[in-house]
Amino acid sequence: MTSVHHPLTEEQIRREDELVQTVVASFDGAADDRLREIMQALVRHSHAFVRDVRLTEAEWSSAIAFLTACGHITDDRRQEFILLSDVLGLSMQTVAVNNEAYADATEATVFGPFFVGDAPLVETGGDIAFGSPGQPCWVEGTVRDTQGAPIAGARIEVWEADEDGFYDVQYTDDRVGGRAHLFADDDGGYAFWGLTPTPYPIPHDGPVGQMLEAVGRSPMRASHLHFMVAAEGARTLVTHIFVRGDELLTSDSVFGVKDSLILDFHEQPADAPTPDGRDLGGRTWSRTRFDIVLAPSDL
Amino acid sequence: MTSVHHPLTEEQIRREDELVQTVVASFDGAADDRLREIMQALVRHSHAFVRDVRLTEAEWSSAIAFLTACGHITDDRRQEFILLSDVLGLSMQTVAVNNEAYADATEATVFGPFFVGDAPLVETGGDIAFGSPGQPCWVEGTVRDTQGAPIAGARIEVWEADEDGFYDVQYTDDRVGGRAHLFADDDGGYAFWGLTPTPYPIPHDGPVGQMLEAVGRSPMRASHLHFMVAAEGARTLVTHIFVRGDELLTSDSVFGVKDSLILDFHEQPADAPTPDGRDLGGRTWSRTRFDIVLAPSDL
Ligand SMILES: [Fe+2]
Ligand SMILES: [Fe+2]
Repeated sequence: MTSVHHPLTEEQIRREDELVQTVVASFDGAADDRLREIMQALVRHSHAFVRDVRLTEAEWSSAIAFLTACGHITDDRRQEFILLSDVLGLSMQTVAVNNEAYADATEATVFGPFFVGDAPLVETGGDIAFGSPGQPCWVEGTVRDTQGAPIAGARIEVWEADEDGFYDVQYTDDRVGGRAHLFADDDGGYAFWGLTPTPYPIPHDGPVGQMLEAVGRSPMRASHLHFMVAAEGARTLVTHIFVRGDELLTSDSVFGVKDSLILDFHEQPADAPTPDGRDLGGRTWSRTRFDIVLAPSDL
Repeated sequence: MTSVHHPLTEEQIRREDELVQTVVASFDGAADDRLREIMQALVRHSHAFVRDVRLTEAEWSSAIAFLTACGHITDDRRQEFILLSDVLGLSMQTVAVNNEAYADATEATVFGPFFVGDAPLVETGGDIAFGSPGQPCWVEGTVRDTQGAPIAGARIEVWEADEDGFYDVQYTDDRVGGRAHLFADDDGGYAFWGLTPTPYPIPHDGPVGQMLEAVGRSPMRASHLHFMVAAEGARTLVTHIFVRGDELLTSDSVFGVKDSLILDFHEQPADAPTPDGRDLGGRTWSRTRFDIVLAPSDL
């Protein structure tokens, strides 16, 4: 704590404690055990916050106004409350809680708002860019279980922004690009051509962006490529891969970065032969390897 | 806690702790010390909540949807986030934090949404009902400081619902009734005719009302009459008085009730002489006494 608050009298502490107990007890009659547990924990933690910081009435009013502004900017396309959860690390903490560490299973990270179902199918070695601009990037690896056995036929969804930092769904021309699904081969192997990941900001023209500015934080996300990997009997993995050396790794606005998800993206000169003989028309390219380990689903 | 959660591995605890530390550190650069303190405390307490209840991703989505619904029902006349703060006891805890116990100073309670400035002035013994329907109620008392000295000229604002449970501002006909201001006399005394308080529900046709219903809580407020008392050199007091015997005292939806604010309202037969000789046209009436003690402003 930065501020030093004055000591409280016993009577004051008694009044504040008693209020917490009264509010907690008001949920005792909830028929749903889980709802009761959640609401009572919410009361305890939120009251502890108010008491801890000695929240002033002006600050309380600012909080009400902030939430109201978040509500009013939120519509079918913009979700400020998810952004708020993201920049407070609450989305990432929820991911952590629901994807517990298990042996060498690959770590999960935030889902993000840009996944779309029905992405096109590509074959092994196919191009997921579908014309989206950016430097070509060869991504390859395996999908295995925590015993090291290949998971043949694992379904792999990948999606990413183009070199301008936009996902296809952020354009108004109905394009589909920078997203696809593919299946691991009989040895659990997979490979595709994507784009070398580039950074982009989360939407920051609303109250969450104003908050970030007020506290001196950047809205930028570290460069990344999204993966969702699913297989029978396995815990579905939602994660990203990040680019080693990216200066935004330590300030990712939504706290999605995990050391284990930072990979070497090897820059290749324009004349370097490609793994599958593909002609890139004289462009430079990059390559990386991401070996995926899925936890069992019945943890 | 109701649920029993399984024990976490050291690695899992390390990951969750590390995330909290990373998010807290992201606010280290905030230029405003108080804003940094508040945001870092918010992170610590909100993450503790998520970890404590092991919030599922479905529950997280429900929370986002709930906040979104609160935002969308909120407009210039309806404030669902204040209702949410109220029913979680957070408004009352903020009041407690900002009105610390001091000697025998009268306890504060929630302000509520129905105060309006420019309420009419009445003389001592005047009628604040201005035609609003309800049983007449004689309210009298004194305003003193914590040394027992009368505070002559203290400004007293009072406002209350009519017998149908509505404040004047909830009607669309621009009526003014059930609200006024008056001044304590040279001995700190005051008196007015109001209405015997009656119960009313907080607005419960929105997401907060749905939550109350889901947990088996009533939206009703215990019967009350609002006071705001201000004087030079004194801490402004915002409070209510409640009616002893009201069955809603123990389930007030916003936790505004304090034992010290529950008063005896003495029912009077229709033929009982009134304190000021006023003719009530054969109606029954009630009377109560509320002696007010203001803390000094320079605590
Ligand atoms: Fe993304
Ligand atoms: Fe009220």
